[in-house]
Amino acid sequence: MADRLVEEKSKKTMGEHFENLRYQAGKIFDLASAGDLMGWDQQTYMPTGGADARAHAMATLASMAHQLFVSDEFGEAVERAEEEIKELDPDSDEVGIVARLKRDLDRTRRVPAEWVEESQRVVGLAFNAWVEARAASDFEAFKPHIEKVLKVKRAYVGFFEPYDSPYDPLLGDYEPGLKLATVKEIFDELRAVQVPLVQQISERADAVEDSFLRVHFEEQAQWDFGLEVIRDLGYDFERGRQDKAPHPFSQALNLGDVRITNRVNPNFFGPALFGSMHEAGHAIYSQGISPAIDRIPSLSGSTLDAAHDASLGIHESQSRMLENLVGRSRAFWTAYYPRLQEVFPSQLNGVELDTFYGAINKVERSLIRVEADEATYNLHILLRFEIEAELIEGKIEVADLPEVWNSRFEEYLGLVPPNDGQGVLQDVHWSDGYFGYFPTYTLGNLISVQLWRKINADIPDLETQISKGKFGELIAWLRENVHRHGGKYEPMEVLKRATGEELSAKPYLDYLTEKYSEIYGLS
Amino acid sequence: MADRLVEEKSKKTMGEHFENLRYQAGKIFDLASAGDLMGWDQQTYMPTGGADARAHAMATLASMAHQLFVSDEFGEAVERAEEEIKELDPDSDEVGIVARLKRDLDRTRRVPAEWVEESQRVVGLAFNAWVEARAASDFEAFKPHIEKVLKVKRAYVGFFEPYDSPYDPLLGDYEPGLKLATVKEIFDELRAVQVPLVQQISERADAVEDSFLRVHFEEQAQWDFGLEVIRDLGYDFERGRQDKAPHPFSQALNLGDVRITNRVNPNFFGPALFGSMHEAGHAIYSQGISPAIDRIPSLSGSTLDAAHDASLGIHESQSRMLENLVGRSRAFWTAYYPRLQEVFPSQLNGVELDTFYGAINKVERSLIRVEADEATYNLHILLRFEIEAELIEGKIEVADLPEVWNSRFEEYLGLVPPNDGQGVLQDVHWSDGYFGYFPTYTLGNLISVQLWRKINADIPDLETQISKGKFGELIAWLRENVHRHGGKYEPMEVLKRATGEELSAKPYLDYLTEKYSEIYGLS
Repeated sequence: MADRLVEEKSKKTMGEHFENLRYQAGKIFDLASAGDLMGWDQQTYMPTGGADARAHAMATLASMAHQLFVSDEFGEAVERAEEEIKELDPDSDEVGIVARLKRDLDRTRRVPAEWVEESQRVVGLAFNAWVEARAASDFEAFKPHIEKVLKVKRAYVGFFEPYDSPYDPLLGDYEPGLKLATVKEIFDELRAVQVPLVQQISERADAVEDSFLRVHFEEQAQWDFGLEVIRDLGYDFERGRQDKAPHPFSQALNLGDVRITNRVNPNFFGPALFGSMHEAGHAIYSQGISPAIDRIPSLSGSTLDAAHDASLGIHESQSRMLENLVGRSRAFWTAYYPRLQEVFPSQLNGVELDTFYGAINKVERSLIRVEADEATYNLHILLRFEIEAELIEGKIEVADLPEVWNSRFEEYLGLVPPNDGQGVLQDVHWSDGYFGYFPTYTLGNLISVQLWRKINADIPDLETQISKGKFGELIAWLRENVHRHGGKYEPMEVLKRATGEELSAKPYLDYLTEKYSEIYGLS
Repeated sequence: MADRLVEEKSKKTMGEHFENLRYQAGKIFDLASAGDLMGWDQQTYMPTGGADARAHAMATLASMAHQLFVSDEFGEAVERAEEEIKELDPDSDEVGIVARLKRDLDRTRRVPAEWVEESQRVVGLAFNAWVEARAASDFEAFKPHIEKVLKVKRAYVGFFEPYDSPYDPLLGDYEPGLKLATVKEIFDELRAVQVPLVQQISERADAVEDSFLRVHFEEQAQWDFGLEVIRDLGYDFERGRQDKAPHPFSQALNLGDVRITNRVNPNFFGPALFGSMHEAGHAIYSQGISPAIDRIPSLSGSTLDAAHDASLGIHESQSRMLENLVGRSRAFWTAYYPRLQEVFPSQLNGVELDTFYGAINKVERSLIRVEADEATYNLHILLRFEIEAELIEGKIEVADLPEVWNSRFEEYLGLVPPNDGQGVLQDVHWSDGYFGYFPTYTLGNLISVQLWRKINADIPDLETQISKGKFGELIAWLRENVHRHGGKYEPMEVLKRATGEELSAKPYLDYLTEKYSEIYGLS
């Protein structure tokens, strides 16, 4: 009896430290969440007159969240909770939460405040220079800035010694646990197959026609159709909403409030719907995270975030799955094409399902990443990934960037950018200091298909379900095997637990080859 | 030469402390502003699933702002700045900012943290009890809660001894510097004239007909007409926006971002337009505050606010002026009635301007304050003000509330509430602990007319300007004499500086008597 009392008392004491950690983490989470709301509002409803004050307020909140996070008080709370829960099941939420906080804290504490300040200064100037340089297509004007950004990033990498490659700590900011060597090997495989595949497709460009998608489709009807589809997919509008914004994005403010945004091109059917499905993929992931992990901040890049996900790659696997594996599949349109024809009779009556399916999967080699289709997207990423890794490793010089970009672009995509604005200067990432970010897009593609194979093995009639507009089992599988864990496990462990597999290129390449061989009639 | 150097050096040192104060105040402001955005979002776009997390986050931010505000560091910053600027012109922005911060700080520091906690607990429970009690029209269920709220408010008042009346510190939370004795004397004058005036009007109720306003008016057209009007009035949409919300309100996030909300009744023309004009009045005030006072938090009630205004009464004077003195005037409709007929031809063609003018000014004695018209509104307020002051002064008991309410309601408005839900339980204020708040509505009415007389003296052709839809000189006058000062002066000083007058009932009573005598043909 006395023993049991002691045990209960010690249990209670255990819980106290973990509860204290949750309480303190909750306050940091609240600041991060308020910052996220300000970010969402900035892109959706904020009048232009509010821009300066908003920038001030977002900086204040981010800095307060950071201060609380690296405070001795919070560090001690993490340590005490760790001690308290050390007997618990390693798979418990408590252990996962503490492990993630410890990892994020370690990463944050390695970086001195002076570096953060210097980095913000350099990146701020680089961003402004990039805006002008891109508009003027003037790489020389951007060159000194990208050199300074690289210097700052190399200093950052130094805080994480030892490493196999100086690129590893950068990649690890977005995909914890993943290394350059692994990604490189897999991306080499992709290149070996995808470059010739896209080449073959482009030789049969005339096999697919999509001009009937490039006519007027009424904006509100496009918007409403998208809402209907994502509601069916399982996006919970009681815990989310879709608003207009110049660029589509998903923003989790907390597990009960995960919003998405979108825009409509009134003269092209496709971007709005697939944008909604893509962002709904992100949002359904966040909505599916276990409430046990709510109100815990997590590090994404170097920012404290209210969302608690595994990584950008896992996130992207969910958005790409709904956008491409579901949204650009014949099964999906078997269910939805009659409805779409009902909404847009004058545009689509007389267009067969097969013709429509081909059109939404039309492949076109183009200069701009954000406009790239499913078959060419990875090639845009490969190029950027290779170049940024070589820059960080000192294998190429900044001065050579335009030349390297253009020659590889021609090699991979058969086109030469007419100028640097549409070439090496097209993306904001490097001016923003986001080295290590690009590969996450392609990782998302690969993971989406690895998961997809396993889901189809577990739910043999999935295609039939989708062709009837039923997504319940699909989403339930994702909830159980991916979503609920949130950021409890590192991304490759999420993949391993869900599929039993390591990261691999083959499933994606098989999927791509099969799909496009059929559409383009390749041998 | 040496003297000038010393002088310049001391000038520089002076500036440093004030700049440090601004910097620290700016951080508190940012937290308050983020909290305000969360509040705005809660009423406009937040999905229901976000409610719990939002309540948590708003509480965290309010508490952090409060902690920073009462910190020794901030207190010292205020003191150093005060020392630094003591030679400056007493009318300078610097002196005004420091004086206001000192006053708010003094008020905040008098209140112990334990009281704040206890008060929040009591008020939280009282609010929930009120929601149920009102729905069930069950005063007995609410009685113990209002007693506890009163006890808490009496304890609060104790922190501000000495005072003439225990009601003074409560009133002073909303109208700094104003006392019960002054308000009572003025409100007694109002009652002596307004009760018989409303009685006279009600005897000639048939003289005005408004049934043509109570038909279908298309929602979007009402919304757009309101936007057109407030744009003309001078509401700056580059620094604001109007969104839908269940209750109209105005929210300043900062001087560059002052938003309003509204709702539309599709079967009654009036509430939406006058709601827009009312909220635009609030917002144009905030938009007109001098940028020199931006990013300084100020206390409103017991909350740190991103808006820096003089008081609720001054605020209300601006909203009532645009809603009533402009919006319900014949001059205004001389300009806008043809346009309104154009928008709603089937509803308004054949209705003369005079008939329309009478209809939007129709007086009806009703049970509910928020539905009251210009002529009866003050009577609803008088009743509440008298009762809450007597409660706080211990002149009446909680148990007598329903009886006191009903008998005075009959005396002032000639009606007896059929139940307590539509009687003493109708307002949220007391359950929320907002004692001292009610009179600010009527103060706003009085001040609006005192200002209006002065404006008409300074701009003799104002009525002609308004009848041509020109509001530029009016708004410029308000900017110069009211808006730009923000919260630099106490409310009665704002009035004094703008008009040369003390607070007075007579101008309002003259205005009301003249206007309604004409509309209702009173002798």
